[in-house]
Amino acid sequence: MNNIRTFLLLSSGAFFLLSGFINNVKAQTKTSVSKNEYKTDSIKVNSNYFTYRKIGANTKTTIPLILFIHTRGNLDSWDGALLEKLAAERTVITFNNRGVASSGGQTPESFALMAEDAYLFIKALGYNKVDVLGFSIGGCVVQELLVLHNEIVRNAILAGTSPKGAKSINQRDPKIAELVTRPTLGMEEFLSLFFNASDKSRELGKAFWQRKLASKYPQDLAVSKEAAQSQATARFNWGNDTLHSIQYENITNPILVAGGKVDLQMPTHNSVELYNLLPNAQLNLYPDAGHGFLFQYPEIFGSDVNRFLNSNNF
Amino acid sequence: MNNIRTFLLLSSGAFFLLSGFINNVKAQTKTSVSKNEYKTDSIKVNSNYFTYRKIGANTKTTIPLILFIHTRGNLDSWDGALLEKLAAERTVITFNNRGVASSGGQTPESFALMAEDAYLFIKALGYNKVDVLGFSIGGCVVQELLVLHNEIVRNAILAGTSPKGAKSINQRDPKIAELVTRPTLGMEEFLSLFFNASDKSRELGKAFWQRKLASKYPQDLAVSKEAAQSQATARFNWGNDTLHSIQYENITNPILVAGGKVDLQMPTHNSVELYNLLPNAQLNLYPDAGHGFLFQYPEIFGSDVNRFLNSNNF
Repeated sequence: MNNIRTFLLLSSGAFFLLSGFINNVKAQTKTSVSKNEYKTDSIKVNSNYFTYRKIGANTKTTIPLILFIHTRGNLDSWDGALLEKLAAERTVITFNNRGVASSGGQTPESFALMAEDAYLFIKALGYNKVDVLGFSIGGCVVQELLVLHNEIVRNAILAGTSPKGAKSINQRDPKIAELVTRPTLGMEEFLSLFFNASDKSRELGKAFWQRKLASKYPQDLAVSKEAAQSQATARFNWGNDTLHSIQYENITNPILVAGGKVDLQMPTHNSVELYNLLPNAQLNLYPDAGHGFLFQYPEIFGSDVNRFLNSNNF
Repeated sequence: MNNIRTFLLLSSGAFFLLSGFINNVKAQTKTSVSKNEYKTDSIKVNSNYFTYRKIGANTKTTIPLILFIHTRGNLDSWDGALLEKLAAERTVITFNNRGVASSGGQTPESFALMAEDAYLFIKALGYNKVDVLGFSIGGCVVQELLVLHNEIVRNAILAGTSPKGAKSINQRDPKIAELVTRPTLGMEEFLSLFFNASDKSRELGKAFWQRKLASKYPQDLAVSKEAAQSQATARFNWGNDTLHSIQYENITNPILVAGGKVDLQMPTHNSVELYNLLPNAQLNLYPDAGHGFLFQYPEIFGSDVNRFLNSNNF
């Protein structure tokens, strides 16, 4: 698999800026790639190298916050404004799970297997206790991590996600479903998928897009078709599963469930249901926002996450 | 009416601690009463004196936060820990609306009339713009204030309350309905009404009760049967009304809707409905808590309110 990836990487190199290309090839080996002080590191997890970025200092806590990205998302998908807000109070780590973007290996077709990989990644970094924030399918992976390796998780944030067995996530508007599978998304497509149709939400979406273009990090690889298909399979099976195949009543970690009011990917009622299923959860829902509420309100959501993680919760 | 109240006050004086009694008689006139630096003031609103307490300094904003209390609540009903958390960042004002506890006059039988009184009180204090936090029926009064005098409100917090026409608020468990009407509540009754049945919620409820007993303020008068009956009538009519008798879509103020997971007074789904009705609202729901979630988590809820009020919201 690594050979195939390397081949694809080399043969598609012309599509990347030279610096991004070289950086990404390096990321497949045990070195770090940087653009001034903003670097992408990699670490061996079983036989594959996982790429990641470590941001901020341990100012208030020694427990880092590990971020789990959405379908087809890579290291570049996180909002720099949100990362900076969070990293002002703790170490923040973004990563590409197995087979995703510049990480090696083959992406598995279940969130439980992705959670196992994430667990191994966290252990490889040397952590025995972490906070986790999972966005969209990243939130599904975090839920499986809470079941399989609860001991490594202190607090969790489940953003724009759904409980296992939430049928509604497989009932997307066909226009939205089609957009999701496009190999690359322009700004307009991205706004449709992640922001609300209001002028205000779209304006804030454009501001996010500009922040993304101005990223200070070396550019990550795009997610392969194959990895995206594995994620889509895992997502479909998640929604198609039985609701109580996870015993939510046993997950007593303090959890912040968060969502936007008009979410076309993971309809908002799923967040309310997660809040109801989890015995120790706070629910935060935000106005005039879609799936990408956390990139629409990086200051507000970042503050709320910091407050949640800094409190002796509940 | 003032004469009747004064008579009742004098004839029932034996039931109060001497200091409390004298303080409260004074509160009917235009003086302030104090217990060291912790004082209760009064101000003339039309022909009646309204009692209030002003806490904290304008450290971050010149806009004060006005608090609206629950049924049968008086100045002593607010949690000192919550007040201190809020007052660390802004001026906080608690008050007794018309006819309530040590405030003069007759309590009206509608939240719209109570909102008119509150408006006059705020203007009498000299404010043209305030933040407001309404708890339980206080949240109903705040909703009417947002309709009648929107110009005076910047941000609002609607805590443990319901939209107009929420039928479920008139369908309380008979045991709960009976408890609400008792002239005085002991700790056990209070825990049943305001906290969850779990050990943890009850422990936090007892801690609140202890904070209440240790209050540094001169003791307020209890709410009269007559005032409580007027509040109950207003509450019944509120729940019995038509849902869209308030045009929520026109209330564009940033609003934080907040609630506890298991609310026996204003069932939690009412908070979700309010969030859905209001175009510019954030929803925060808290775990393992009842109607009194804000006294169960004074640090957490206080922090969330401060973050909400400090942000350039939405």
